[in-house]
Amino acid sequence: MQIGIIGLGKMGSNMALRLLTAGHDCVVFDSKSSAIDALTAHGAQGSTSAADLVSKLSLPRVIWLMIPSARVNENVRMLATLLSAGDILIDGGNSYYQDDIQRNHILKSFHIHFVDVGTSGGILGLEGGYCLMVGGEKDIVQYIEPILIALSPDKEHCKVSAASTARNLEGTAKCGYLYCGSHGAGHFVKMIHNGIEYGIMGAYAEGLNILRNANIGKQQNDGDVAATPLRNSDYYQFDLDLAQITELWRHSSIISSLLLDLTAHALLDDPNLDTYSGYVADSGEGRWTINTALDEAVPAPILSAALYDRFSSRGNANFAQKILSAMRQQFGGHTEATHEKAADDGISN
Amino acid sequence: MQIGIIGLGKMGSNMALRLLTAGHDCVVFDSKSSAIDALTAHGAQGSTSAADLVSKLSLPRVIWLMIPSARVNENVRMLATLLSAGDILIDGGNSYYQDDIQRNHILKSFHIHFVDVGTSGGILGLEGGYCLMVGGEKDIVQYIEPILIALSPDKEHCKVSAASTARNLEGTAKCGYLYCGSHGAGHFVKMIHNGIEYGIMGAYAEGLNILRNANIGKQQNDGDVAATPLRNSDYYQFDLDLAQITELWRHSSIISSLLLDLTAHALLDDPNLDTYSGYVADSGEGRWTINTALDEAVPAPILSAALYDRFSSRGNANFAQKILSAMRQQFGGHTEATHEKAADDGISN
Amino acid sequence: MQIGIIGLGKMGSNMALRLLTAGHDCVVFDSKSSAIDALTAHGAQGSTSAADLVSKLSLPRVIWLMIPSARVNENVRMLATLLSAGDILIDGGNSYYQDDIQRNHILKSFHIHFVDVGTSGGILGLEGGYCLMVGGEKDIVQYIEPILIALSPDKEHCKVSAASTARNLEGTAKCGYLYCGSHGAGHFVKMIHNGIEYGIMGAYAEGLNILRNANIGKQQNDGDVAATPLRNSDYYQFDLDLAQITELWRHSSIISSLLLDLTAHALLDDPNLDTYSGYVADSGEGRWTINTALDEAVPAPILSAALYDRFSSRGNANFAQKILSAMRQQFGGHTEATHEKAADDGISN
Amino acid sequence: MQIGIIGLGKMGSNMALRLLTAGHDCVVFDSKSSAIDALTAHGAQGSTSAADLVSKLSLPRVIWLMIPSARVNENVRMLATLLSAGDILIDGGNSYYQDDIQRNHILKSFHIHFVDVGTSGGILGLEGGYCLMVGGEKDIVQYIEPILIALSPDKEHCKVSAASTARNLEGTAKCGYLYCGSHGAGHFVKMIHNGIEYGIMGAYAEGLNILRNANIGKQQNDGDVAATPLRNSDYYQFDLDLAQITELWRHSSIISSLLLDLTAHALLDDPNLDTYSGYVADSGEGRWTINTALDEAVPAPILSAALYDRFSSRGNANFAQKILSAMRQQFGGHTEATHEKAADDGISN
Repeated sequence: MQIGIIGLGKMGSNMALRLLTAGHDCVVFDSKSSAIDALTAHGAQGSTSAADLVSKLSLPRVIWLMIPSARVNENVRMLATLLSAGDILIDGGNSYYQDDIQRNHILKSFHIHFVDVGTSGGILGLEGGYCLMVGGEKDIVQYIEPILIALSPDKEHCKVSAASTARNLEGTAKCGYLYCGSHGAGHFVKMIHNGIEYGIMGAYAEGLNILRNANIGKQQNDGDVAATPLRNSDYYQFDLDLAQITELWRHSSIISSLLLDLTAHALLDDPNLDTYSGYVADSGEGRWTINTALDEAVPAPILSAALYDRFSSRGNANFAQKILSAMRQQFGGHTEATHEKAADDGISN
Repeated sequence: MQIGIIGLGKMGSNMALRLLTAGHDCVVFDSKSSAIDALTAHGAQGSTSAADLVSKLSLPRVIWLMIPSARVNENVRMLATLLSAGDILIDGGNSYYQDDIQRNHILKSFHIHFVDVGTSGGILGLEGGYCLMVGGEKDIVQYIEPILIALSPDKEHCKVSAASTARNLEGTAKCGYLYCGSHGAGHFVKMIHNGIEYGIMGAYAEGLNILRNANIGKQQNDGDVAATPLRNSDYYQFDLDLAQITELWRHSSIISSLLLDLTAHALLDDPNLDTYSGYVADSGEGRWTINTALDEAVPAPILSAALYDRFSSRGNANFAQKILSAMRQQFGGHTEATHEKAADDGISN
Repeated sequence: MQIGIIGLGKMGSNMALRLLTAGHDCVVFDSKSSAIDALTAHGAQGSTSAADLVSKLSLPRVIWLMIPSARVNENVRMLATLLSAGDILIDGGNSYYQDDIQRNHILKSFHIHFVDVGTSGGILGLEGGYCLMVGGEKDIVQYIEPILIALSPDKEHCKVSAASTARNLEGTAKCGYLYCGSHGAGHFVKMIHNGIEYGIMGAYAEGLNILRNANIGKQQNDGDVAATPLRNSDYYQFDLDLAQITELWRHSSIISSLLLDLTAHALLDDPNLDTYSGYVADSGEGRWTINTALDEAVPAPILSAALYDRFSSRGNANFAQKILSAMRQQFGGHTEATHEKAADDGISN
Repeated sequence: MQIGIIGLGKMGSNMALRLLTAGHDCVVFDSKSSAIDALTAHGAQGSTSAADLVSKLSLPRVIWLMIPSARVNENVRMLATLLSAGDILIDGGNSYYQDDIQRNHILKSFHIHFVDVGTSGGILGLEGGYCLMVGGEKDIVQYIEPILIALSPDKEHCKVSAASTARNLEGTAKCGYLYCGSHGAGHFVKMIHNGIEYGIMGAYAEGLNILRNANIGKQQNDGDVAATPLRNSDYYQFDLDLAQITELWRHSSIISSLLLDLTAHALLDDPNLDTYSGYVADSGEGRWTINTALDEAVPAPILSAALYDRFSSRGNANFAQKILSAMRQQFGGHTEATHEKAADDGISN
């Protein structure tokens, strides 16, 4: 099948490679020519612009966008004028599903079909395949199924899984791609996927932080009056090896998972994670998940806590914390900071 | 190796079976004779009491307790008087690690060795093996290693994993058991394991709840003045199939995990989970994890939220919610409940 | 000053009374004629429709809307066609500030001035005055200042406060009304006010729930295997009197507040709050506060937790809790519910 | 009445002054002689040691301890040997109520009466009086009532309050002191008071942080790829004056409170709180409140979130955040930090 791919970052390039390997005919474009060259070496056809890419595709054209969500709008508008009635535009990035619904309205007026695909798998997807959550018109999604099959995990993987665990489940979910519903459904499901991902990541992170501090009973904390003294230091004398423990849990524990596998890898390479500062980005999905929970009046305390911790990691709680210090100064005369005198701190409220 | 096993519930029985299969010599006891009979049919030697079991073991005796944490103390005290110097008592249940430290003090005065083993794997462990987190004296743990090997995942599993992912990691973690440190270290690590487990479970649960309500735009909510009206119902028109979606995510998504596998199974069997009421128990580990975080001054908002949701599922937030209703009545004259008049509810604070 | 008031619920009626008492000339309308009659008895001029009300006001007209936020849009659209250039339309309800910005765009095209007023005080405001957060054009807000003065706390209150606590602060804040900024600023500040209100209410509610359960050590919990057994029941033998304690805290404690006053009242009337079920509504502001925090990347775990608890009070966490039960069934074979056998529940993960 | 006071920090000194003013006879001791001298200037009798203080008191002695909770144990043990049967020892500091129960067991064996008093009011208490939560033997608490009356808010205050709000409530709560129950009950109630205090403080702090960032739409955030781009910057153009707004809310808003008063003061003095860094201490009560909630299985998400934010303010979430960065690096190849390239960050999961 012929497909045009716009956006050759880590994800787009790997997906193109996977499609080329499966025998599909790829025309590719990116603002960086080096990214294009890397793919033409593997059999892709390069192009010099989005318009050039469009001109090289046969009707009905199938184009896969794999670009940052902030740039999708401009690309959709541009392509709306370049494409022909009956063409298919796929957004495989991390767009907000409500934008999909809007974009479909625009594209529909041009008789262009729109498909939204939430794509999970990260850099592991090149080898292992991608998990694809798809929204749009059902027959159009069926038309591009060869693309979905090539991108999703291989048949071997699919067969094994089908046999062992989901034997009675019909459909393509067990092959790693799924038609989820009308326009936006793919990105809706991907949005929640990422919201859950934040929660799971945070659960491991909190637990490992507690394990790491299991030796605090060995520390003198006389000097730090900011912290309540430990009541029994005998219970906090463990020096735990996080690389060993995360590896251990991968083997038949209830919390084994892909994210745990990755954590074990990272801790094996850098046991104290000294190469990181702990400044954690958040892409839109985490926030949109909470927005959605609010609209639905569904409680989401875990997913929210996970997101807020990322905000805090970037210093965004600091003013709130200054307010707390200012209040304590007002009612208790507490001087802020590590060096405050312990004399009567504990008792003035 | 000869081993005595006290406690033949779901976990204890399965572990005995696994040990018998590996060729170990098991003497078993439980207050239910049917549980004993089931194992003697597989080659175990039954006993009529803990004392009888002790009498049937050669020195140094090795005894594995697999009983509810609330009953460990009485058993440890009883066995302290029945066992001989040099014997080894293993607590494989879900004890609080601080109790391990106390119990070791008692048993040490009798020259009995104590080993604490946190055991994960649930009912899947019979076939797949158990993940074992071990604390105590290092040489004693080495002495019982044949037991640990028999209970942990099989060597095939272990070899594959070693080859593929943790190739550079020395030690036994990649085989599914690990000496974590001194007395209590095994249950400490297991405690945090379960704390994380609660968090991961909750992350999936919240996300799936949001997915399930993706069709609220189809509902009329004129009548329910308790809920803020939905601003744009067009965005909430999806009827999502949770059984398909959870199956889908198992295939190369970043959030694939054992708990997701189990969730997909459950949803395949009962798509609306009508067989459940949502009354969720909590074992001690979730609470002890938070206690530990508090002692260490480590923030654990996700793990706490997961635990609190279980408390709430049992109605324990109800009085707090009545307080909220009472306050609203006081300041806004809001009459509680679904039937309250909408007339001026939205504007009186 | 002459003012038209549309919406005579609890809030609108009380505000009209306060304005009448201050000598202002009020033309009032509500869909319920009884609400109109009640005010004409106090000197207001009634009207038979919004159009009739408009016809009875002199130019430039000043109209105060005090209606549920869901009905503001239709009223603004209708009034846009009835009013004349130079008229002033005030929305004193709980509108979303982003709607204010949109509405101002519409009204501006008709040369009608728009003012948004966030109003706090509830049913206490009739006697004590209202706290008014105002957004719009500065000179227009100055024009309606007589109205703001009449609605806000009386001058006596204002003077005392100015003398005692904010002696150096210039401006009207110490009188209970404040020009906060351009269109939407009033409702923005009110939105956050209510977000904070939810948090404070929840803080008291959680604390009182903990106090109420200080006697759990007196209960037998043998039967309930869903709960971890209490480790030391001696510490939970207190029967605390919440009505007395909340009254106590009102006197010189750091947590004295208006909401505490109201809570003490409620507990005095109904110590066990038996007249409430704990089904707690949420108006839009709590959700909009969180939406705003998300847009700003500002962590808001407390305000979110307070909102989620309201969602949960209405049963909206139930499906998530069923997911947890289903998972526990899968990995531990745990049968859900109070009646589950304790036998080996504590140890199967 | 004659009373000995040990511990003359901010709280102890002010309480002594209040007692002296009320005509009580105070014998005082502190390790700092300057603190003693300051009080002898106001009519107190100084002492050179705890033993000296004890020797100067008539039987039955009444001694009030006002010292950091970490030092109470050693003082109780020392005084147990110095005091006589029938003497009364009062702990007015912030002790853990479970320690009270232990200490009472010890003191009871010496026939010394123990009273625990939770004291709220901070540095404002000197003028306004203290809110006193009292536990112990009821008749002993009655014996020391003159002390409680002198320390609690004055009678004028008490009368007014009784008349206006709690007219039907019998007892002393409306005077600012209350017998809460047996030993430990006073500190139990004070513990929860402080837990609530953390929650309320955090609610204001979060809300004010959101208000402060209401102008983010004015900032360019092209460079920061860590943050999801703002979808509509028009809604975030407000420069809000927090000092004015907090003052405003003090006047008839639903969230008026003592803590709000203090916050308004602090913002008036230092609008950006530049004198604070946001490093926030926590005394024991916040943690003990959560421990208690866990024992009772009562959800406390708000109070927990407030406590965790303090932990985070001291950098204690950092390792968990490094874990998140490490995971993101593993699955998405995301390079951490502000300078990461935006190119394909948004789309690789």
